Amino acid sequence: MAKGLLIVLSGPSGVGKGTVCSALRQKMPGLTYSVSATTRLPRQGEEHGVNYFFKSKDQFLSMIENDQLLEHAEYVGNYYGTPRDFVEETLEKGQDIILEIEVQGALKVKEKFPEGIFIFLTPPSLEELKDRITGRGTETQATIDHRMSVAVDEINLLKHYDYAVVNDEIDLACKRIESIIIAEHCKVRS
Amino acid sequence: MAKGLLIVLSGPSGVGKGTVCSALRQKMPGLTYSVSATTRLPRQGEEHGVNYFFKSKDQFLSMIENDQLLEHAEYVGNYYGTPRDFVEETLEKGQDIILEIEVQGALKVKEKFPEGIFIFLTPPSLEELKDRITGRGTETQATIDHRMSVAVDEINLLKHYDYAVVNDEIDLACKRIESIIIAEHCKVRS
Repeated sequence: MAKGLLIVLSGPSGVGKGTVCSALRQKMPGLTYSVSATTRLPRQGEEHGVNYFFKSKDQFLSMIENDQLLEHAEYVGNYYGTPRDFVEETLEKGQDIILEIEVQGALKVKEKFPEGIFIFLTPPSLEELKDRITGRGTETQATIDHRMSVAVDEINLLKHYDYAVVNDEIDLACKRIESIIIAEHCKVRS
Repeated sequence: MAKGLLIVLSGPSGVGKGTVCSALRQKMPGLTYSVSATTRLPRQGEEHGVNYFFKSKDQFLSMIENDQLLEHAEYVGNYYGTPRDFVEETLEKGQDIILEIEVQGALKVKEKFPEGIFIFLTPPSLEELKDRITGRGTETQATIDHRMSVAVDEINLLKHYDYAVVNDEIDLACKRIESIIIAEHCKVRS
């Protein structure tokens, strides 16, 4: 049995990663979603192993020390991270797993898991801008330079990814991500 | 405007390339189909530039000499080939073009057009066999060796391709090919 694929969905803040991921859940029920570990206390209705793996700070620090997290970050005084075991066990079962994560975290996952499929969700305007910048060059150099300087941070990170998916419409973005997953399963690997 | 993609659909004789291509035409009307050049005489109802580009033998030999064909072959006394101009003009317009071709021809196209997307259509049994051969290894070595020797010619060619698509059901095969095309358009190219 072939191993599953690790799909990493990332992109700039506010691009709509969460919304796209929720829509994908509906469209692709066979896809497993990575569950994060956190030191934050559970909120009403949150279940251990479903919403999060809830950990004490000591447990979390020990996971870091034993390389049991693919990435981790601190946010508002709490730790959040991606447990390696859950990802690897899912892949071993031949199931695909998707990880929704911000850009820096995704690049850390790539260091530990270069065989993952890294998808960068972009706002439509960034894509349009990129097309114009790299395209036919009918604008003045000054205009291009200014736009480049605004977009450059994100474009610099995009190059570390395998795919760029424009989030112009949620249905279209989902279809593109589904297509990437299907295509990756057809890929001839040497 | 981004250039279109050259999609090369190939696979062993009898695998159903023509049937899958016809189904794709229905599903993806925006896809252009490569028109072959031939020295064969037009049959009733066949149109120049639609079914084939009809050429005299001298014209065809001159196209070979001037590197105007991505590949060519002789079959039952007539020449057949893929005109480079038609492919390149379509790509320049930003349109994808699909070329349905036998395995040796596809590999010749790859020499001249390595940036093409090479898809190998496989019969389901080959895929199953490959999975078993490369999989968990519960069969005896003798059985594996025998099966390998039957499949080895095709598997040896498969490795030159980017994608393997199983033609188990036409609709599924079409969906996989459509997914590959969508995914390739999302690919981050360095």
